This record gives sequence, C-alpha cells and structure tokens, in this order.
Amino acid sequence: MKKIDVCLSPELLHLYSLEDQTVVIVDILRATSCMVTGIAHGVESLIPVATIEECKFHQCNGLIAAAEREGKKIDGFEIDNSPFSYMNPELKGKTIAMTTTNGTLAITKSLGAREILIGAFLNISALVKHLAAQQNDVLVVCAGWKGKVNLEDTLFAGALVHKLKNHLKYACDAPLLAETAYLSARENIFEYLKSSSHFNRLKKLNVMKDIEFCLKSDVYEVIPVLKESKLVKLELEEFQTSRSVN
Amino acid sequence: MKKIDVCLSPELLHLYSLEDQTVVIVDILRATSCMVTGIAHGVESLIPVATIEECKFHQCNGLIAAAEREGKKIDGFEIDNSPFSYMNPELKGKTIAMTTTNGTLAITKSLGAREILIGAFLNISALVKHLAAQQNDVLVVCAGWKGKVNLEDTLFAGALVHKLKNHLKYACDAPLLAETAYLSARENIFEYLKSSSHFNRLKKLNVMKDIEFCLKSDVYEVIPVLKESKLVKLELEEFQTSRSVN
Repeated sequence: MKKIDVCLSPELLHLYSLEDQTVVIVDILRATSCMVTGIAHGVESLIPVATIEECKFHQCNGLIAAAEREGKKIDGFEIDNSPFSYMNPELKGKTIAMTTTNGTLAITKSLGAREILIGAFLNISALVKHLAAQQNDVLVVCAGWKGKVNLEDTLFAGALVHKLKNHLKYACDAPLLAETAYLSARENIFEYLKSSSHFNRLKKLNVMKDIEFCLKSDVYEVIPVLKESKLVKLELEEFQTSRSVN
Repeated sequence: MKKIDVCLSPELLHLYSLEDQTVVIVDILRATSCMVTGIAHGVESLIPVATIEECKFHQCNGLIAAAEREGKKIDGFEIDNSPFSYMNPELKGKTIAMTTTNGTLAITKSLGAREILIGAFLNISALVKHLAAQQNDVLVVCAGWKGKVNLEDTLFAGALVHKLKNHLKYACDAPLLAETAYLSARENIFEYLKSSSHFNRLKKLNVMKDIEFCLKSDVYEVIPVLKESKLVKLELEEFQTSRSVN
C-alpha cells in the first residue's frame, strides 16, 4: 500500500525524501487557494517564485505579477493575495508571476519531487481522486507561517489524510496528528480557526470574506500541477489515465 | 498574561527566542521519563550530553553512563533507557552521564533559555504548579523522533497547555494543535498511541511495561532542572518562593 506523510513546516522538509513522491503544497490562507482559483478561472499558468526580486524580474519581462508579504500586497505589483482577485476575467489565458510569504517558498523547497500539486479545500475532492489513483507515495507539505506550524494547513492535511485512509497508509506520526485535529474541527472549521494566529492576523486586514471562501470545499475541480517551473492545469487525460490504472 | 508556546521538533527551535523563557523538555518515550524517575529515586544529578563520545568521556572519568540510540542501549554503557533501570537503589547519590536519540539533543539545543526543566506525565502536576507560579513565558520543546514531530511528546505538550489554560495564553498555533490532540486522546492515551510510530518501534523491543509506566500521571513530585550543565532536583524552596510570588 502506498504511504502518505505530512511535513508540518517547510523547515522540516530536509528530513523527508522527495524523489518518487507526489508532493501536495498547502497554504490555505491564501496562496494555494488563490492558485486553484486562478487556474479554475482560466489563468493559463502561474510562476511561483521565492523572492520579491524574482517576481519583479518577471514583471519587467512583461508578466502580470503578484507579491504578498505579511498578508499584504507589495506596492508596485498588480494583484493582491485574495482569491477574488484571481477571478478577474482579464487574467484569462495570462501567465502570472507570484510570490507569497510562505506558499511559494514551500513550492521552491519541494523541487526534486516527482510531481508537485497544489491543494486547497477548494479542490480537495479532485485531489483525493487523483491521489488515490496515482502510483506514488504522497507528501503533504504545509506552508505554515514563517517556518512555524499553523492550524489551517494542518487541518487541510488532516482532511486529505482522512479522506485517503483507504488508499494510503500513514508513513509516520504527523499524518495521525493532523487527522486528529481535522476530526476535532471538521464540524465547524471556521469557528475552530478563530483561535488561530493567522486568522487574527488576517482579521485585522479585513479579509474575512477571503477566509470564508478559502474554507469552502469543492468549489473547483481543477488541480494545478508544476510543469517546467509553471503551475498549469492538470489535464483531464492525465486524471483519467492515472484513474484507469487502479 | 504570560504566554506558552510549543516547539514540535528541535529542528524548529531556531524559530523561537529562548532568552527569558522557561523551557520544558519533553521526550516521553523515554528519556525525560527516565530523568524524572532517576531524580525521584535519589540520583543526585544527570549530565545530558548530545553525543556517544561525550558520554564515553564522562564514563572514562568515572561516572556511570547511559547511552541509547534507536531505542536500544549501546554496548559498553551501564544503563539502558528504561525508567525501571533508574529506580536502582545503587544509583542513589550518584551522577549519571546520559545520551539518548532525541531527548538529550533537545536539551543541548535549548541552552540559552533562562530555565530548563524536565517534563513527563510522571511529574505533570508538579510542573503545572511550578509553571503557573513562576514569572517567565514557557516554551515546551518536544524531542520528537530524529527531527520529525511525534505523537507522544505532542500529547504531553497539549496536556500541559490545557492544564495551564487559566495561567498562560497561547503564543501561536502549535499549543492549540497540541491541546486539540490531547483532548481527543486523553480518555485513553495508551490506546491512541498504539497507532504511533515510536510505539510500534518500541513494541518490537519488548518494552510495553516501560510505555505503560511512562504514560502514568503524577507518580512523582520532583522536577529536574538544569544547573551548571547538570540536571538536579528543583528545590522545594524555589517552588515555594516562586509560588508565593503569585
């Protein structure tokens, strides 16, 4: 049976082997929720970069650019870190360079994995289907907050572990810990997260509508996948091929 | 109000400020449970060292020495990593040099804290009393397993957070996550831990009796504290002084 593991912070990533793994990057509030939303609304591709300088470089080369730090948009960039900004019809068919406090760093640290996918509550069922059908062990990489473990990413990891229970066995203790937290919180994740540090950080920024949206399950069926340094839509054909294997 | 935080792995310790903190080191299976047991049974002091070489050095200088890796005693050392070994009356008044896979490393990485205490279920109520009365913020450092987060140390951290709820507020998300896990598991921690990786590692080593003992609450009232590189008994007077402050 294939295995599933959870890396609760990118600072722990050096303890995990990446090769032969399908990695799922999680930054619920809000980077990966934005990525899923953008790709679902027709953004052609997203280039995740670790630093503001790299993001500016792409902007100078004519791309639309999105840069966020501490939950706020950096001056001089086009898009903020709200999923609603990624629904803009003007972004259809475009490529966006993107850097965020935690999420994009988690992606660049995961390079070396066999496959890198983007996960959010917004696309959780599509992910579950794909992960159950494909052949690799799975590592869920929580973006956390500046290296520290956070609640919302851990809860999502726990939800994924729980929903894949019949397909993937726990590789270690972190999946069980995440699942326990999810099972405690699942009746009302929004209420539970009210005690979390990032919820309170974002509350001050007036993005309650964003949080509510980011906690919705199955709004979209798309899965962003990293191909040649860009996040693009995982094609239905790849879905079907991998599904027919099982 | 003072704060409590939880560092889920020594690999994350660089993200936390140590100065002005009272650090509680936790390695339930079995290093800190052994330390509490030893000090409670009259061991005068324990010298925690990170490496087997340092442990051998102390042994050559005439100390009794205990070295464990992968859950097993290293050949050539006197004591294994079972709490029952630390009840031996012959150890009364003696100093023991000690190295373990995770616990002693967590201690050496925490040097720089204002106070370093040793925590286990075995002395949890004594700890709660002391931590509620003293004046520093508290950081619970889970030893984990080779850098990865583990269940038993997280559960203990959660128990401590929960019991100190009225005295210390959460510094971040990790205390809330640990508390959630503890509240889910507390009716039967032994049963819950049956799914954990270290439980299964130790099961193969036939130390079920050790595990059951290490999960007992309040067998002892002592708190080992690090003083001049040695773990010694926190004196009742220090207890009382700090208690009378509040």
